[in-house]
Amino acid sequence: MSFRVASAPASGEDSLIARYFKPIATDAGAFSLNDDAAVLKAQGADIVVTTDAIVEGVHFLPGDPPDTVARKALRVNLSDLAAKGATPAGFVLTLALRSAEDAWLKPFAAALGDDAKSYGCPLIGGDTVSTPGPLTISVTAFGRVPAGKMVHRSGARPGDRVVVTGTIGDAALGLDILKGGAVATALAGDEAARQMLVGRYRVPQPRNTLAAAIRAHASAAMDVSDGLAGDLTKLCAASGVSAAIHTPGIPLSRPAAALVANRTIGIDTLIAGGDDYEIVCAVPEADFEAFAQDARKAGVTVTPIGAVIAGSAAPSFLDERGRELALTRRSWSHF
Amino acid sequence: MSFRVASAPASGEDSLIARYFKPIATDAGAFSLNDDAAVLKAQGADIVVTTDAIVEGVHFLPGDPPDTVARKALRVNLSDLAAKGATPAGFVLTLALRSAEDAWLKPFAAALGDDAKSYGCPLIGGDTVSTPGPLTISVTAFGRVPAGKMVHRSGARPGDRVVVTGTIGDAALGLDILKGGAVATALAGDEAARQMLVGRYRVPQPRNTLAAAIRAHASAAMDVSDGLAGDLTKLCAASGVSAAIHTPGIPLSRPAAALVANRTIGIDTLIAGGDDYEIVCAVPEADFEAFAQDARKAGVTVTPIGAVIAGSAAPSFLDERGRELALTRRSWSHF
Repeated sequence: MSFRVASAPASGEDSLIARYFKPIATDAGAFSLNDDAAVLKAQGADIVVTTDAIVEGVHFLPGDPPDTVARKALRVNLSDLAAKGATPAGFVLTLALRSAEDAWLKPFAAALGDDAKSYGCPLIGGDTVSTPGPLTISVTAFGRVPAGKMVHRSGARPGDRVVVTGTIGDAALGLDILKGGAVATALAGDEAARQMLVGRYRVPQPRNTLAAAIRAHASAAMDVSDGLAGDLTKLCAASGVSAAIHTPGIPLSRPAAALVANRTIGIDTLIAGGDDYEIVCAVPEADFEAFAQDARKAGVTVTPIGAVIAGSAAPSFLDERGRELALTRRSWSHF
Repeated sequence: MSFRVASAPASGEDSLIARYFKPIATDAGAFSLNDDAAVLKAQGADIVVTTDAIVEGVHFLPGDPPDTVARKALRVNLSDLAAKGATPAGFVLTLALRSAEDAWLKPFAAALGDDAKSYGCPLIGGDTVSTPGPLTISVTAFGRVPAGKMVHRSGARPGDRVVVTGTIGDAALGLDILKGGAVATALAGDEAARQMLVGRYRVPQPRNTLAAAIRAHASAAMDVSDGLAGDLTKLCAASGVSAAIHTPGIPLSRPAAALVANRTIGIDTLIAGGDDYEIVCAVPEADFEAFAQDARKAGVTVTPIGAVIAGSAAPSFLDERGRELALTRRSWSHF
């Protein structure tokens, strides 16, 4: 680990770490980033480990503001912890930078520190390396769950309800706007909608307040990062089940619903689009009311969108008349 | 985390993970890479966390064989765990790839699995992302130490011996050979020496068998990754001490010693060169014999090279007549 600060001949790397990251590494286990490693205390719990990297030009755009890039890098990992029912415990950061520019690093570190504080997930260590390529930010985040209580992708049973948090597809629309696509044109006169959708792409809202409810009530859960259709397919495959989804019941934001209504986009685009960072989970029928109540207390909207059914087929997405939609693409893949 | 394997419509990413990484993720906490997160059991210990990334063209060369790249990516992290006195517990991997080529991934994963097994450090999760830039491999590794027993950079006291493992500077010579520098020319007729030095650059030999001895006897320790002079400077700064090093006592390999003797290179090049992945530590005088004995049992050569002294100056490197060497550069820095 090269989050190292020397009082002696400071290298460029050391001084940038000292300046920007030391102030936000306030956890005791971070040793003020003065050591080669951090210490994480399990406190009798299982440590849940998740890692997700974001790459400029792939997961965020070269022009994206540094503060939103920082928040996205951490939040895509917080989203995994939430879906697994884990309480955030800390994270390490690897920054591959072309150059160390104060104008970029200062707002990046400030936003990262801000999120670390609000989500209770302190920076405990990291590495900075130089690269001739695109800016790449890799985060490994840690959470705690009571021993054996991590919520898995497997565990969904026929009869369980399929539930999603928030709204689906907004981030894909936001990306289309940033790329000047059809959505940008359709919403040319609606600045508020454009901003909301772009915000959904740039700054995910991970559902960490829902972690305890997921742990208490969900039979299976995962975060929706590569598209609802594809991610639900993975959850079903891991659980050895299928699902029937009432597509008109999938929660959409007002602008997304309007774009579907006026046929600018199809619902298939929304359910195959990535970057939602919502949670999809299976909740046994008997638990549903208690789950919905806990979700209300947590301030998270949850919507039942269908049912887990027996079988090994990929989940069907049915229209208002019960006809299955033909999905040409279920999710985003890197290769 | 996107180490995800779906039995349903397999994306390119899913199938490459399944093919190459699932077989080496044998730890129970990895859930066969079928989930979004892994579980690490602390078993009553502190979890030591370290993270180090390696970038093509910076930490390894574009032509380096995939198996040596894999080993280096893991071993630079194992080296940190060794220096902190921790026993390896597992790691997560983030691969930023331009393309997913079987011819590269197959030997990469095989070597990674081989090292994971021999060092007892299983792959528990990871992420693969596409990048238009250089191949970047980020590893976060975990170790266990008895609560509160991680060995720090701070803790060295005046009177302690300064000790290093193995030999210093070989990797810097190996890199020079790969780049066709002066060392390549000087050793044109000595294929065995060239191979040894290149091997030292490409495949570090982390001193994990020494971890228990470090924990038992060292007052401070770190691994030597950015150059002995610079890294010892950091250890001294963190400990609030200085050091006097008897430079002729620094252990060199036979080829390195010959190159210094015939003035192809200066000793300063060796002690400022990076990529040694040896350990530098401070050992109280009273502990030294026991430490040396434990090291022998662990099969690791340790050499005392000087003494910790009071003061806040950077460590002095003294020649055979006790004159201080003027070091223009103490270590490698990325920026």
